[in-house]
Amino acid sequence: MTTPDGSPVPSTDGTARNGPAPGPERTASALARYFPILDWGRSYNSAVLTNDLVAAVIVTIMLIPQSLAYALLAGLPPVVGLYASILPLVAYAVFGTSRTLAVGPVAVISLMTASAAGAVAAQGSPLYLEAAITLAALSGVMLVVLGLLRLGFLANLLSHPVISGFISASGVLIATSQLKHILGLSAGGETWPEMLGALAKSVADTNPWTLAIGIPATLFLFWVRKGAKPALVGLGMKPRAADIVAKAGPVVAVALTILAAVLLDLQGKGVKLVGAVPQGLPPFALPSTDLGLIQQLWVPALLISIIGFVESVSVAQTLAAKRRQRIAPDQELIGLGASNIASALSGGYPVTGGFARSVVNFDAGAETPAAGAYTAVGIALASLFLTPLLFYLPIATLAATIIVAVLSLVDLTTPGKLWRYSKPDFAAHMATIAITLLAGVELGVIAGVGVGLLLYLWRASRPHAAIVGRVPETEHFRNVERHKVFTVPHVLSIRIDESLTYLNARWLEEYVLERVAERPALRHVILMCSAVNEIDASGLESLEAINHRLIDGGIGLHLSEAKGPVMDRLQRTHFLEELNGRVYLSQDRAFREAVADDGNGDYPTADMARGMI
Amino acid sequence: MTTPDGSPVPSTDGTARNGPAPGPERTASALARYFPILDWGRSYNSAVLTNDLVAAVIVTIMLIPQSLAYALLAGLPPVVGLYASILPLVAYAVFGTSRTLAVGPVAVISLMTASAAGAVAAQGSPLYLEAAITLAALSGVMLVVLGLLRLGFLANLLSHPVISGFISASGVLIATSQLKHILGLSAGGETWPEMLGALAKSVADTNPWTLAIGIPATLFLFWVRKGAKPALVGLGMKPRAADIVAKAGPVVAVALTILAAVLLDLQGKGVKLVGAVPQGLPPFALPSTDLGLIQQLWVPALLISIIGFVESVSVAQTLAAKRRQRIAPDQELIGLGASNIASALSGGYPVTGGFARSVVNFDAGAETPAAGAYTAVGIALASLFLTPLLFYLPIATLAATIIVAVLSLVDLTTPGKLWRYSKPDFAAHMATIAITLLAGVELGVIAGVGVGLLLYLWRASRPHAAIVGRVPETEHFRNVERHKVFTVPHVLSIRIDESLTYLNARWLEEYVLERVAERPALRHVILMCSAVNEIDASGLESLEAINHRLIDGGIGLHLSEAKGPVMDRLQRTHFLEELNGRVYLSQDRAFREAVADDGNGDYPTADMARGMI
Repeated sequence: MTTPDGSPVPSTDGTARNGPAPGPERTASALARYFPILDWGRSYNSAVLTNDLVAAVIVTIMLIPQSLAYALLAGLPPVVGLYASILPLVAYAVFGTSRTLAVGPVAVISLMTASAAGAVAAQGSPLYLEAAITLAALSGVMLVVLGLLRLGFLANLLSHPVISGFISASGVLIATSQLKHILGLSAGGETWPEMLGALAKSVADTNPWTLAIGIPATLFLFWVRKGAKPALVGLGMKPRAADIVAKAGPVVAVALTILAAVLLDLQGKGVKLVGAVPQGLPPFALPSTDLGLIQQLWVPALLISIIGFVESVSVAQTLAAKRRQRIAPDQELIGLGASNIASALSGGYPVTGGFARSVVNFDAGAETPAAGAYTAVGIALASLFLTPLLFYLPIATLAATIIVAVLSLVDLTTPGKLWRYSKPDFAAHMATIAITLLAGVELGVIAGVGVGLLLYLWRASRPHAAIVGRVPETEHFRNVERHKVFTVPHVLSIRIDESLTYLNARWLEEYVLERVAERPALRHVILMCSAVNEIDASGLESLEAINHRLIDGGIGLHLSEAKGPVMDRLQRTHFLEELNGRVYLSQDRAFREAVADDGNGDYPTADMARGMI
Repeated sequence: MTTPDGSPVPSTDGTARNGPAPGPERTASALARYFPILDWGRSYNSAVLTNDLVAAVIVTIMLIPQSLAYALLAGLPPVVGLYASILPLVAYAVFGTSRTLAVGPVAVISLMTASAAGAVAAQGSPLYLEAAITLAALSGVMLVVLGLLRLGFLANLLSHPVISGFISASGVLIATSQLKHILGLSAGGETWPEMLGALAKSVADTNPWTLAIGIPATLFLFWVRKGAKPALVGLGMKPRAADIVAKAGPVVAVALTILAAVLLDLQGKGVKLVGAVPQGLPPFALPSTDLGLIQQLWVPALLISIIGFVESVSVAQTLAAKRRQRIAPDQELIGLGASNIASALSGGYPVTGGFARSVVNFDAGAETPAAGAYTAVGIALASLFLTPLLFYLPIATLAATIIVAVLSLVDLTTPGKLWRYSKPDFAAHMATIAITLLAGVELGVIAGVGVGLLLYLWRASRPHAAIVGRVPETEHFRNVERHKVFTVPHVLSIRIDESLTYLNARWLEEYVLERVAERPALRHVILMCSAVNEIDASGLESLEAINHRLIDGGIGLHLSEAKGPVMDRLQRTHFLEELNGRVYLSQDRAFREAVADDGNGDYPTADMARGMI
């Protein structure tokens, strides 16, 4: 038991290590907390500018077809996807804390938008568009409020198994919803069985020309995703260049199918095209203040906010950690909120940080959120000048883009892993998948959160406790069921392996009193509190109830190894005065004194007990 | 460090102490679990019968005016209160596990019934009565289902501060709602401000004759409650007899005011009387199967079930503990469920175990639930023969009974205690009180549960962890902020004082990575897991993420003092193979080896790490 080798350094005050920034910089840093742009903006220079510009060009090329496709998935005019990819990026550049997160329309949020707006109005109606814009506005306001109130922890309610189940099921739903565009059908359906049924019913009406565009486009995009880079490298291209060229694959598919549509007059053959897309910058629009609409949309808006936030933060955290940077989750809420408000004000729909595009942005060398602002300029230029070209773009091409993008969301390995590791987590995962597929995205998320919480509360309501005895010849006490230990019939030592809160207060009473009822010779109960980090008011009431009932039975109640903060709070109550026993610093001493009590001696008074603390 | 004095007994197998009953009795005990009557019925004899009969007579005398009064509070014809006090008691005698719990209408549940039925129909209408009966049926079914699924733990969601806040606020609401009967007004109102406003508006119409009955009745009942027993003892009566006579006080008030009503023709002077009460046994009735009604009532029925269960179980537990008996909470759900179904089938409304009457039953010497069945016979006789006498009973007398009963529910000391002990519990308590008074009982309960859960989740999402260092010359490790300990710049030891679950998984990642980012010289992180009782799938993913990010930074990650069950589960995953470090049984050894690493030596491989487990 000597001090360790090496060069030990005595630490006198740990707070200094983790403390806040020194005084003088406080005001500036408080402002920079809400406007991270003030932080990175100060050191901006031409080298950073170049890197950001290169990344912006690559992300822009990737984002144009994606924005159109996701708007289609959301049931909105394609141009709305472009609108949602301009101002939101600028807003995130000002308020966001991730250096490389790329914001815009994403698949899952688009699906949730379609589901929520579809419950209010028919696709294509003005009210449907208004609902989508209102969702962005509501979601933006909710995110900002959550951020200002520092309620980001609510996102914790979505456990990993729930999120991954939800994303997998959404991937399946989205891919299935796009099959009709590949086949040239107008089948509908909200849930998976409905969609499959509608497809099966109308499959005879498949348009062969649409299929002739859709199948090759899908295969090409799959190849671009998996095989293009190795092929280009095989042709002598440098890996990094090959990577960038491969990212332009969707643009190539768009260009080729537009060409095919023009040359072969596909519109005359029944192939659906994007058609006229309004040319110009997004319109400025005030979101709806219709209270009825808001009442119908606030629940889905909340779900969209939380799902979007969780997705975005995990992407941002992953990328930040690779460069040893940090993000601030509560400020991220504000950043995403600002993006959604910006989206609503410019005729867009809900947005969040996307995984694929953020990785591309990161790999392409983006150094600051300014890259996002430059991307916004790129998309703005596209919506000013390129929209006429999109007239001939087949819808099937966009559907192929979506299908290829979302199938990577479907994760087939997780259920097996969860089954082996944790049955409750498996149950939450499968419940989320099943309900998302069968009853839609909103109920899927709610059910996942509900099942997760129920299982958590169930486990929290029956925490672990062990009857302990002395390991012979030591001061250690261990579980009687796992170790050969010494106990005596008139002393019961219970180690509580959990904080005492209202969720388990009832359990504690039952557990202790049942153990006591089983032991007629009992004279002393020692609660070993080494793992009790907190005792809330309900836990305290249970301790009081246990104490009173043990007094009725002539049994002493002692506490051992209670932590400092727990004792501090107990001392503000009458519990220690009323305690029919003592408080011991060590379980060893508590056990020794209780064992030594022969049942005839006077028992220590409350005053003495307080003296022991 | 010697073995303790006394007579230590080595315990080789702890399970034997807590194990289930031996094999042969299994089937009988399984049946007795669902029919506790089979248990106590076998040893029933004439001595027990006498005790039960005496208790039944006393409780019957107490229950007649109470049943009428609580039916009035629920907005129902008084006879419904009698109906709810017959069959439910028989059902509880068969299915309940408490020997002394007295079931029937209670104040808070009556108020909740009035609130729920009042939202569906006007008081006095047939639909209103049907809604009350449906509430009993729904609540009965829900309780039985919760019991069969062993979901009693859901009652834990109601913390002590929430329940006590709800009961206090309900007491205030109930007393206020009865003032109009004392004043002879017909003021309405659901919430407290509404009630006060309606009273203030119509106070000029006060009926002096009603007041002349109401005020003396109230004062008399207060005196009966507090001063009658000492007075009777002062007159030479034995304390136990005085107690029983005092319990008859409400019956005296009923008899005297009936007499006054007859002699003074109070009806002609505008005093409201109970009027015609149907004579006879309760009718058999099938509850409504109207789906629309059920849809409107299931939420209040669930709240009534849970509030009723929590109240009843705490009364039952308190009384059982006094005689060293046990109750089975999951079977209590079934017992109360059966009572409510019985109530619905006999034209009654929701019932539960009442505090005052159970204490009377207990004090009067009831030994088995049969006392409840005898009470039922008493009430049945009353509804057969006494109802004509009730015609002249002034409503004001019943209102006085209620007011005196519920004011003892209002607890003025709890807020101060909670404020001193726990601010979050205080917040949940006050929120429950405020919302119950201002927005009604249902929203009050829901808000209380919501606030409690929110605060719990908030705390759970940011658990306690400490950076620890070695206490010099020992193997102990303590918080660097509280103790003078040794640390070295290239090793960071973090003690996690909580299980790793999805609620705090995100926090762990942030906590560890922030501490790492602050320490440029860091080469080893040791997570001390002595207080980690569980790692769920989300916690595991966070550990994996931390491991990957530390690998990126060239930092080793080690675990120390992980518990057996936690290690067992980790071994079913790939985490230990991927871990960039070792698993140590003791923090001491982990720290010594990490300190000894000079930064140049090879680091132990994953195979070696697994060898260490």
